[in-house]
Amino acid sequence: MHKLHPGLTIRLFTEEKCFGPGVARLLRQVEQTHSLRAAAMSMQMAYSKAWTIVKKAERELGFPLLHSTTGGRSGGGATLTAEAVRLLESYEAFCQDVNEHARQAFQTRFAWLEQE
Amino acid sequence: MHKLHPGLTIRLFTEEKCFGPGVARLLRQVEQTHSLRAAAMSMQMAYSKAWTIVKKAERELGFPLLHSTTGGRSGGGATLTAEAVRLLESYEAFCQDVNEHARQAFQTRFAWLEQE
Repeated sequence: MHKLHPGLTIRLFTEEKCFGPGVARLLRQVEQTHSLRAAAMSMQMAYSKAWTIVKKAERELGFPLLHSTTGGRSGGGATLTAEAVRLLESYEAFCQDVNEHARQAFQTRFAWLEQE
Repeated sequence: MHKLHPGLTIRLFTEEKCFGPGVARLLRQVEQTHSLRAAAMSMQMAYSKAWTIVKKAERELGFPLLHSTTGGRSGGGATLTAEAVRLLESYEAFCQDVNEHARQAFQTRFAWLEQE
């Protein structure tokens, strides 16, 4: 028996999937680089794809995630809105909490595997 | 603000991903149909893909999931091993437990969204 462990993909949905590890990472990169283009590049993602992901999340969530500081769609600077900062904090705390619970629940539910 | 809710994809890993919603559903279908071929068909999955998924999970887990009752790879009947039954029960209970915790944690972490 190889050592088993759980792995969760944690997303937030409205009607559709709207927020998950990809957009969270993208926003953290925007925070560091002050640019959606630089953030996309740092993840080997096309700028157009990054832009689509952010716009879709904004549409589903109902609030803006990025302030465009200069060029907007043409690739100028970007910073996170206050709501984006709060959403990221909540999402990361939520993931940590759920993953911690999952680690504990896994020990309980799969203890029999260790005894095989 | 559209109504947000969490959605988790819960998998079990050894070194690699080895067990998740797809193989769990496949095994439950084998239980009902007594055939891997019929189980694959019920999920619009090629038999060869179903066979590969099961074999990979067995290799990673280190125990058999299916008893081939007749034809084996040629597509005869199949039933779950005792370990597969137990793994499914543990996996489903684990998912229920983690999802329930996630629902509660979500209420706490994202309460501020309701007040916007």
